[in-house]
Amino acid sequence: MKIGVLDISKAIEDVEVAFKALAEGRIVNPPKTVLDFYETGGSYKGHIVSMPVHALSPYNVACIKWAAGFVRNPQRGLPHGIDVIVISDLETGKPLAIMDGTLITAVRTGAVNAVAAKYLARKDSEIAGIVGAGVIGRTTAWGLQAVLELSELKIYDIKRDKAEALARELGPEAKPVSSVQEAVSESDVVVTATTSEEPFVEAEWLKSGVLCIQMGKREIKEKAIVSMNKIVVDNWEQYRNYDRALVTKLYKSGLIPRPFELPQIVAGQSPGREGQGERILFDSFGLACEDLAVAYRLYQDAVKGGFETKLALWDYPHWV
Amino acid sequence: MKIGVLDISKAIEDVEVAFKALAEGRIVNPPKTVLDFYETGGSYKGHIVSMPVHALSPYNVACIKWAAGFVRNPQRGLPHGIDVIVISDLETGKPLAIMDGTLITAVRTGAVNAVAAKYLARKDSEIAGIVGAGVIGRTTAWGLQAVLELSELKIYDIKRDKAEALARELGPEAKPVSSVQEAVSESDVVVTATTSEEPFVEAEWLKSGVLCIQMGKREIKEKAIVSMNKIVVDNWEQYRNYDRALVTKLYKSGLIPRPFELPQIVAGQSPGREGQGERILFDSFGLACEDLAVAYRLYQDAVKGGFETKLALWDYPHWV
Repeated sequence: MKIGVLDISKAIEDVEVAFKALAEGRIVNPPKTVLDFYETGGSYKGHIVSMPVHALSPYNVACIKWAAGFVRNPQRGLPHGIDVIVISDLETGKPLAIMDGTLITAVRTGAVNAVAAKYLARKDSEIAGIVGAGVIGRTTAWGLQAVLELSELKIYDIKRDKAEALARELGPEAKPVSSVQEAVSESDVVVTATTSEEPFVEAEWLKSGVLCIQMGKREIKEKAIVSMNKIVVDNWEQYRNYDRALVTKLYKSGLIPRPFELPQIVAGQSPGREGQGERILFDSFGLACEDLAVAYRLYQDAVKGGFETKLALWDYPHWV
Repeated sequence: MKIGVLDISKAIEDVEVAFKALAEGRIVNPPKTVLDFYETGGSYKGHIVSMPVHALSPYNVACIKWAAGFVRNPQRGLPHGIDVIVISDLETGKPLAIMDGTLITAVRTGAVNAVAAKYLARKDSEIAGIVGAGVIGRTTAWGLQAVLELSELKIYDIKRDKAEALARELGPEAKPVSSVQEAVSESDVVVTATTSEEPFVEAEWLKSGVLCIQMGKREIKEKAIVSMNKIVVDNWEQYRNYDRALVTKLYKSGLIPRPFELPQIVAGQSPGREGQGERILFDSFGLACEDLAVAYRLYQDAVKGGFETKLALWDYPHWV
């Protein structure tokens, strides 16, 4: 913690710099490789995802995140996601740092949502509603608090005590609410961060000028998505073949146009919000360049602060 | 070294077990992701490859190799390739081990070639010729010595002193020779392990019953490849879209049939050598499951032997 892994403002800056580099071609972020695992009985057990990326200016490193997520981990007292990040030098391929990526992933995801809010929410947004008081709900709340002047932050969770605990953590403007509808109605920014398979946010609940941040890919009802004035994703390439995402399904059915991409918006290559009344949806998969940006800053600060542990790959190179 | 990273016989066993598991569907080995890097002037600088894999019985782990190769490393006193391997538990996603993969890569590649020799060379092979006295030439020589009763092992390298030094290392049956033709002619097993872009092994030099192991993908002349009785690769999926490989080019031109795969041969699903006179080519890209197999054995032996260094990903899980 000492080196700032939980510093959401720095992570927001990191993500903006990375998105600009990605849009301008200085970062190459290939598709993830997903390994899925099932119990002997056939039920879903978890996944591990390989996320390689390389970045020229201002980084000059390559990076891989090896990101696990296992359904039963919380029962075991472990985080659902457990991630490892390796950063390598682009001149020699030598690993510069090997670090835990679990908190980095949580924080950078909140930071990405904050960047979405910065470019896509109304500047005068005052009320936000978050559905799902888990790790991503928490870091997204931090992100919204960092980029907007919120007077009210409503938190809903199926488990009332989780919503109450998170609201206490987040400060006086935060309060637990008793229904999804209460969290969504009148909110300028709506965040859904759940594992629901069934969409549950009704079109009628969404006010004019809203920004919806849908983390679970199947939370906003189709009618509401189709009625959006603008749909933005982090990277369309990642969505195109993922039919579980409602935006992909609706695009393939011809019901919505090809979504915009947030990195292009940050780089000024695509429009952000174009009017007070626009209803905008932001939907994201996560990109390795976001992890790279935060991990690289932490690596540098760890070295500056003397917090690193030096590891030897070998005592001497055996063969050159 | 204490835990046996240079033990070629164990690595050969490891690779056979992994190939059988792969052919029988217990290992899932997705395609690699390759990141290529160029100097400002446009010349090729190096690459980093992401190689994820997961393995059920007898492993129950997932593994990633993050494998760098940089052209100018040897000038800097560094190995051309520098690799990191992470092994993760398939029940929780927790990393079990993070280790250097540089020597593992070199040794498993020699072991794969040994497995190819075991299934594809004539049982009575006595003479082998190796072109290219680098790291892969060395570990392949070890592998051939482990699986064949060689009376003569000819080593050729553009740099005569490298061939001499390797021959001294390899024992009394090894000797440096002065030309590619001398290394290839009369050899029962021919290995090319060079970075040549121009094929240089003539069809006329290859004797009846030969096994050619082509590591550089463009070393055996097209006429010789077309005249082979059997062509075997490690994994056809990896070749199909890689036109730089001569076997891919010749397949696409309709000049050779679809190659066999070594894992299927090891598992008894495809034929190996079917006659003393067959000329067989083995061509390979390398598979992450080979690294997994060797790394997993080393991890287990390191823990048993008390050679491991324990690393903490965190002091306590921050959020569960």
